[in-house]
Amino acid sequence: MKIGFIGLGVMGAPMAAHLVAAGHALSTTLNRSPLPNALQAEVLPSPAAVAQVAEVVILMLPETRDVDRVLLGANGVLAGLRPGTLVIDMSSISPTETARFAAEVRAAGGSYLDAPVSGGQVGARNASLTIMVGGAEADFDRALPLFQLMGKNITLVGAQNGAGQTCKIANQIIVALNIEAVAEALVFASKAGCDPAKVRSALMGGFAASRILEVHGERMIARTFDPGFRIKLHQKDLGMALDTARQLGVALPNTATAQELLNSCSAQGLADADHSALVRALETLSGHTLSAG
Amino acid sequence: MKIGFIGLGVMGAPMAAHLVAAGHALSTTLNRSPLPNALQAEVLPSPAAVAQVAEVVILMLPETRDVDRVLLGANGVLAGLRPGTLVIDMSSISPTETARFAAEVRAAGGSYLDAPVSGGQVGARNASLTIMVGGAEADFDRALPLFQLMGKNITLVGAQNGAGQTCKIANQIIVALNIEAVAEALVFASKAGCDPAKVRSALMGGFAASRILEVHGERMIARTFDPGFRIKLHQKDLGMALDTARQLGVALPNTATAQELLNSCSAQGLADADHSALVRALETLSGHTLSAG
Amino acid sequence: MKIGFIGLGVMGAPMAAHLVAAGHALSTTLNRSPLPNALQAEVLPSPAAVAQVAEVVILMLPETRDVDRVLLGANGVLAGLRPGTLVIDMSSISPTETARFAAEVRAAGGSYLDAPVSGGQVGARNASLTIMVGGAEADFDRALPLFQLMGKNITLVGAQNGAGQTCKIANQIIVALNIEAVAEALVFASKAGCDPAKVRSALMGGFAASRILEVHGERMIARTFDPGFRIKLHQKDLGMALDTARQLGVALPNTATAQELLNSCSAQGLADADHSALVRALETLSGHTLSAG
Amino acid sequence: MKIGFIGLGVMGAPMAAHLVAAGHALSTTLNRSPLPNALQAEVLPSPAAVAQVAEVVILMLPETRDVDRVLLGANGVLAGLRPGTLVIDMSSISPTETARFAAEVRAAGGSYLDAPVSGGQVGARNASLTIMVGGAEADFDRALPLFQLMGKNITLVGAQNGAGQTCKIANQIIVALNIEAVAEALVFASKAGCDPAKVRSALMGGFAASRILEVHGERMIARTFDPGFRIKLHQKDLGMALDTARQLGVALPNTATAQELLNSCSAQGLADADHSALVRALETLSGHTLSAG
Repeated sequence: MKIGFIGLGVMGAPMAAHLVAAGHALSTTLNRSPLPNALQAEVLPSPAAVAQVAEVVILMLPETRDVDRVLLGANGVLAGLRPGTLVIDMSSISPTETARFAAEVRAAGGSYLDAPVSGGQVGARNASLTIMVGGAEADFDRALPLFQLMGKNITLVGAQNGAGQTCKIANQIIVALNIEAVAEALVFASKAGCDPAKVRSALMGGFAASRILEVHGERMIARTFDPGFRIKLHQKDLGMALDTARQLGVALPNTATAQELLNSCSAQGLADADHSALVRALETLSGHTLSAG
Repeated sequence: MKIGFIGLGVMGAPMAAHLVAAGHALSTTLNRSPLPNALQAEVLPSPAAVAQVAEVVILMLPETRDVDRVLLGANGVLAGLRPGTLVIDMSSISPTETARFAAEVRAAGGSYLDAPVSGGQVGARNASLTIMVGGAEADFDRALPLFQLMGKNITLVGAQNGAGQTCKIANQIIVALNIEAVAEALVFASKAGCDPAKVRSALMGGFAASRILEVHGERMIARTFDPGFRIKLHQKDLGMALDTARQLGVALPNTATAQELLNSCSAQGLADADHSALVRALETLSGHTLSAG
Repeated sequence: MKIGFIGLGVMGAPMAAHLVAAGHALSTTLNRSPLPNALQAEVLPSPAAVAQVAEVVILMLPETRDVDRVLLGANGVLAGLRPGTLVIDMSSISPTETARFAAEVRAAGGSYLDAPVSGGQVGARNASLTIMVGGAEADFDRALPLFQLMGKNITLVGAQNGAGQTCKIANQIIVALNIEAVAEALVFASKAGCDPAKVRSALMGGFAASRILEVHGERMIARTFDPGFRIKLHQKDLGMALDTARQLGVALPNTATAQELLNSCSAQGLADADHSALVRALETLSGHTLSAG
Repeated sequence: MKIGFIGLGVMGAPMAAHLVAAGHALSTTLNRSPLPNALQAEVLPSPAAVAQVAEVVILMLPETRDVDRVLLGANGVLAGLRPGTLVIDMSSISPTETARFAAEVRAAGGSYLDAPVSGGQVGARNASLTIMVGGAEADFDRALPLFQLMGKNITLVGAQNGAGQTCKIANQIIVALNIEAVAEALVFASKAGCDPAKVRSALMGGFAASRILEVHGERMIARTFDPGFRIKLHQKDLGMALDTARQLGVALPNTATAQELLNSCSAQGLADADHSALVRALETLSGHTLSAG
């Protein structure tokens, strides 16, 4: 299949490589970075030019405004879109803006899926991403063989565009609050004189068990805050969660507080640390650093 | 072994039954409830009388003040304690008060373990409780064969008395905040138009995965709020968490907010519902009940 | 003096009228609304045209993006700005964007003050507004005679542009949190069986005394939620506070929670009610409406 | 009148002195402290002995458990109470426990008022305390001449005992949250580059005006954290607020968060600092100390 892929960054490059390895013909256009080594792709001068030759156009971009520019800007995808082309936005962006982008693409005769992912660079390289999709079932079926080259846990969350983005935000809310949960519990136990490693181990067998207690709890105890997923990116995602909640009339009290604690991390120079460093905000508040009991 | 067991309620009765089944001789004293059917035990007139005949005295009582009364009150355990007796408090009570109780028992020539459990009535019946223990290693070794009759995941969390209670509180903090996390995420996604069942399913494969998303997320979606673990008991536990945090100088911002949302559930008549009903507080705030997208 | 005034809405119209009454010549350009009755002003086709004839250009617009468009858009103020012209932005907008706007105006040879106000429509009509100003002292001195026609409590908060906007946000934070404080206290006291009117009266004499307890406390008790200042506008302002705090690395935990409670009001259909209706979020959570004891 | 006064500490001593100065005959019993210099009072061996000679017994004690002991303990007030005696508890204690104490006193033939105060040592010395009273109007009328010797703003908040205590808690909620409001606003403005003294001054004229902005805002800026009212006492009071809210089914989200920030102050060695030092928790979170812009 002729696939356009725009956004060959740390996530996009390995995702695109899986498509090429499966025999698809890739075209792209370059913005900030050069073409990744060893990725076979035709480089075209603009998103419009990519759209003119592709059956499917995949986007993997940092922020809502980037998708806006690449789709709707000068020489954007819309300027070259042919009827029947499927646009798949795999970026993590605003669900309400997604609805607007999808409407524009459909008005131009194309179809649209929002399909953000979780699983990070490791998931991108191993083709084990979780992919959360919003859009029509027929479009999902058409995209599914491509998704299966990049990920494993693939769900059509809803028939409306934006459903995938909403699900991704739900994911980021839970991840942030589970990190906060583990951080509060470990700082409490450690300041009370317990060894946090033993506490984590004791809790892994019961209802407190979670991927976050397992992975991020371990990072907090081992003090390994190399990303992983950066504090500043989680701030961006919770910012999107809270803005969308305001538009929808939803109250997210603990998400809101978690965001302020991420701000505190950022104020302490941890914007580029792994999000498990959220524990530093709690430690600062409590005048105590995790230590063996 | 001659075991005294005080507190034969919904948790204590099945736990004691496992000890009898393994051949231990049980004595007890009755307070509020009659002797459970089919439990073989000698009934004595007071905790002191139980202490006079037992090598090990196990307590499984509702609140800190109950342990205080049974241990230190008139005709309490201390009044009958013989040197060398091991007192094991399996109730979930205050870590700081535990330190005081242990000091009194040791001053009277006994030894002390705090060993609260998680896993609920199902865990008590199936002998699959998680047991979190604080105290000296020699005492732990002496108690271990008894613990293995009642539970599976058994950890000596710390050498100081209170460590087990601290670990149990850490467990309750994480469980409450993970419930809150799932509740915020599902209400957000549902009000945004997604089917919460599909969202839960999509998230189970990634970093948002947890026992709570699996079990309590399902309860929220299915609207089955039969306990399980009651809202009012979780309020009691978080109350203990927050009181202890105040004494220690630890800040638990999200735990504090979760407690207020449990208050809200209680105000809405849900004190005896399962703690997954915390989602009702979020639904009330957001004017939206979970529904298929 | 020849004054351009852009933004003749419910605030701008009475403010501009005071300038005309003092003998200044007003020019404007119309966007959404017609020229207010009885306001003497020359109507020009664009912000650029206004800038070409004015010594001072005053803006009083709803949001950051409106100021962006009017200043920097096609036929915006910048397109007509003559060297030496003073631009005074009296809108309540982003402090960081304000710094950008000021830099553009200065690059074009003009000077810039940000001068947001508090005091509402009553203050605008009575010329009793509080005016919080950021910018150079010389520019402030030049504008002061105009400010004195519109307000009473006029402060040069800082020499850098954005200082006025920062101060306005600080005002909105305190007002929101003082409303929340009164709401929590009155719902607590009322559900405990006290008459909230007597509580408010008892507290007015001590350290709990505030303009909010006086004015908004009275509104909560009397159930008069006609604006005043609308919930949705306070949401906009706290949104700006929280976004700016994120950029700065400042943690505002109670402001963040207050925003979620405003979301709850909005979810309950109160977006256009006075911000004292924040008490409704607390009442909903607590299953109790304020009532005489 | 023959008045018994138990609790001659830093508040009680100057309050009692006003009663003596007005010609009343005072009896007391001593516990921790000697009789204050220059206070004319008959010293009796127990609260019971005081009750046997007094027409009115006034209590001014630190905590709920002290009132419990002095009223209901061995040789407590109840043991000596004569029919018709009026017990006035001016301590700041639990409203629900107050209802229990009042019932015991009435069962013994006495009457009961709860009458906690605000205004601190300065108010006690100057006889300018705010007095918040719960109880029957006839009892209030009987006590009013005594209250007027000690305070100025005297309100019968409700006919039920506990209403005075509830009102005092409402006062402490508002004071804590107004301090938090000022702290969030000033840290925000200062980190954004503004002089907090100018911001405070600009805000004093509008809806953000409060006694707290005036007094505690000044203390934050001047860095004078000598008490005043100590962090640890405000923690005790908010602890009572939150416990009572739990019993009542009231949600106090911002009060709960403020308590955690007070815990943080306490963790940083500020338990005995004035409660305006709450700003230190915000400064710590934001990595910024208030400074001139």
